[in-house]
This record gives sequence, C-alpha cells and structure tokens, in this order.
Amino acid sequence: MKILLTNDDGIYAEGLCALYRALSLEHEVVIVAPEAERSAVGHAITLSDPLRVRVVRRGRDFWGYAVNGTPADCVKLAFYELVGPVDLVVSGINRGANVGINVLYSGTVSAATEAAILGRPALAVSLAAFSGEDYCFAAYFTALLVENLPSLSSPFCLNVNIPHLPAHLIKGIKVTRQGTRKLKERFEKRVDPHGNIYYWQCGEEFLEEDPDTDVVALKSGYISITPLAHDLTDYKTLSFLQDFRLSY
Amino acid sequence: MKILLTNDDGIYAEGLCALYRALSLEHEVVIVAPEAERSAVGHAITLSDPLRVRVVRRGRDFWGYAVNGTPADCVKLAFYELVGPVDLVVSGINRGANVGINVLYSGTVSAATEAAILGRPALAVSLAAFSGEDYCFAAYFTALLVENLPSLSSPFCLNVNIPHLPAHLIKGIKVTRQGTRKLKERFEKRVDPHGNIYYWQCGEEFLEEDPDTDVVALKSGYISITPLAHDLTDYKTLSFLQDFRLSY
Repeated sequence: MKILLTNDDGIYAEGLCALYRALSLEHEVVIVAPEAERSAVGHAITLSDPLRVRVVRRGRDFWGYAVNGTPADCVKLAFYELVGPVDLVVSGINRGANVGINVLYSGTVSAATEAAILGRPALAVSLAAFSGEDYCFAAYFTALLVENLPSLSSPFCLNVNIPHLPAHLIKGIKVTRQGTRKLKERFEKRVDPHGNIYYWQCGEEFLEEDPDTDVVALKSGYISITPLAHDLTDYKTLSFLQDFRLSY
Repeated sequence: MKILLTNDDGIYAEGLCALYRALSLEHEVVIVAPEAERSAVGHAITLSDPLRVRVVRRGRDFWGYAVNGTPADCVKLAFYELVGPVDLVVSGINRGANVGINVLYSGTVSAATEAAILGRPALAVSLAAFSGEDYCFAAYFTALLVENLPSLSSPFCLNVNIPHLPAHLIKGIKVTRQGTRKLKERFEKRVDPHGNIYYWQCGEEFLEEDPDTDVVALKSGYISITPLAHDLTDYKTLSFLQDFRLSY
C-alpha cells in the first residue's frame, strides 16, 4: 500500500519515527507532517497565511515533507499537491491519549478525519504516555492493524488508543464509542514578573464512567478503537426540531 | 437571561457588535471574545501558552473581555474564571457561512460546541456574506430565536446560517443536517520574491446536492438550523466492527 504518515507532534517526533520504521517494512510510506508541534489545534486549517514545505532528512532512510501548518493542512496539501491519492492515511503515534472530549481538540485525530473527508481510510494512533514513552509495541500493533484492516464499504476513520503497558499486561482490544462527559478542568491564575495576570489551562481528569467508552476502556488496560464520523449533526435533536416554527 | 457572547472574528467585529446591541435590549450580555480574528481554528484550545485577558470598551455601553486565545478558550475561560455559568452562549454573528464540511473548521461553531460540552445551550450564528455585510436582519432574527428557543431536555447546540438577502426574499427556516460531501478545493502554488515556493489554500465551492443539508438550504435562500453533537462516534461503523478481532 501507499501510506501517508502524519501527526501533530511534528516531523521530528519519536512516535512518527517509530511508526515510519514499522510501516515502511511492508509499504511505501510518505511523510507529510507539521514542522513543529501542533497539539490541541483541533481541526484548524490555515487560510490566512501561506503554507511552506521543506524536505527533512534524518539518517539514511528517513525523509519527509515538513509543513508550517496544522495536521489537517498536511493531509490536504499531501492529497492535492505533494503526494496525490494514497491507500491509507495514518496519523501518529501521538504522545498522550486522544480519548473522550479530547478527541475534539486533537490535531492527530483531525488529520485522520480530514483523510476520511477526502475519501481515504485513516487511522489516528495515540499512546497513553506522557513520560518515558516506549513506542515499540504501539508501532508493532499499528503495523499489524494495517495488515488486518476490517473491510468496510465507506472510508473509515478509526481512532486507536494504546495503553502504555508491557504487551502481556494489555487486556485486549475494545471497539468503543467516544466518551462525551466533560473533563474535570480548571485554569490556574498566575501573576507574571511585571504584575500582569495570566492563566494556564489545565485538563485534570476524566469523569467518564461508561464502560463502552474509549476513556474507560483505555483506563482499564484495553486498546480502544473508536470509529469516528465527520457528520456532526445531532440526529436525536434534529428529529425533535422537525416541527419547529418561527415567524419573523 | 444571562448570555455569554463570543465569536471567532474577534471582539472588534461588526457581527458581534450587532448581536450585542440586539441581545442586550432584553438580556444581560457578557462578551468574552478573541482579541483578534481566529477564523478556521476549528476546536483548537491553547495549552502551551498562557492566556491573557484585557477589558475592551467601545463607546458608552459596549465592553467585553478580549482573550489572546481561540473561541473555545474564550468559552472555557468565561465559564471557569471570568463569568461563571450562564443561561445561553451565542457565538457570532460570523462573517461568512459555516455549513457543510466547513462546520469542522469553524471557530464560531467550536465555541458553541464547547458550551454544550460544558452543559450550556448554545447558538452559533453566521451570515452568508463576505462583502458589504449587513447584520441587521441576522441580529434581529437571532434575538427572536433566543426569545423562542425550543424546549429541549439536554443542552443543545444549534448552528444557524442566515442568507444575506433582504428579509422578504428569505424563503423560510429549514431544520437541516450538516452536509458531509467534500469541498471542491485546491492549493494555489506561488513563488515569493526570494524564489521560494509557497501555497495558498483555497476552498472553492460546495458539491453538496442533498436538499436536507445546511449547504443546499442556505444556497436556496433558507435560514438553516442544524443541531450539532460533540459525540464524533460513527455508530454505523461501530456496529460493523463489533465482531472485529485481532491477535497480537
């Protein structure tokens, strides 16, 4: 297969490099990734600034296109200009999980969603670790998943989250839905050396308890796989609103 | 009601000002908006930089909090620090429509989605105009909608798009779903004066044809109202995947 590899941690990220090594054993892998970290950018795209591309090489085999844009920009630019159509888009391996409400903020996920919008199947892959990351198993698992992708009629977008555990302690794979409960979060108010107030945004913890969600599956030691859509319509409310009338 | 007003065009935008005037006739309206334009930022949030707030005054009555962040940041910061819980969040009036796939890229919409995540009902309001904008009718209509909000059990997020037409030429209101067909889009490749290549991203036109969508309703001269969710799970694919197994 021809695979487009991207991420939101930037082209120099260890998780991308691990995935490149694992996937390029069997496939043609082309990297188009942000030149620097673009975490929590959501599905941002760059319209007001020009996009620039440069080729990055690391060592003998690793090269890719670095773009001064978001993950979604990278996928679009790859599709329309740099690479053309591919068989699969893989985004990751992200440093840190992308589950629950955080899925909406995730640049890693938005790259995969963008691929599905453009009609290509896609995986977003994240490792639930923020320190001492070891991407070995996650890269191995992703390559295995790529070899054994489910046959689905329409372009799918799967959000894969992998616990940061030794393989034998991972309990299995769960197909999940995205958790929707709000995070426990807060802003930390500080004063800078010049006497001005500023705030740090802190996501604290998940309050999700539903065992069918990505949040709980991951926390319980399972690899979670959540299929994602790019239709944001709330169909339940839509049916309630069908009789809504307003004279203006 | 106590209403939080925000947008993605920035606190100085005409559409926000028009909405402030229309809503503050009957309600307590507090503005927390980006200090500068943050269009197409999607559901980005700011984690790596501190957020700063300053009070902006324009004329006798208009004041608000300007934040150096995204629309979603504004809603979170308002909720947790600056304003506290409100009865309704209104985001807009955006300069330009937010329908179809563009809903995913929209900062205006993400502010409303963020409100719904935090358990508050919300409206995102956009005017389908990019030049010679007249926000009069759109502001009037939004105020009317606020007075006549449907009674729904859970916090709703309604994405409202208003044609830029004289009121008597608007054909009515349609409750719609979000269009999901990809845009006709392209990148324009240019060379800067220093001989370096750069790209401009250009969304060209909608290819959507389904009359039940926001895209087609708006194009046909209707006000479209689309309820939006923040659960991105693709439930159709989820049911297909229930039997998915993989040995690792």
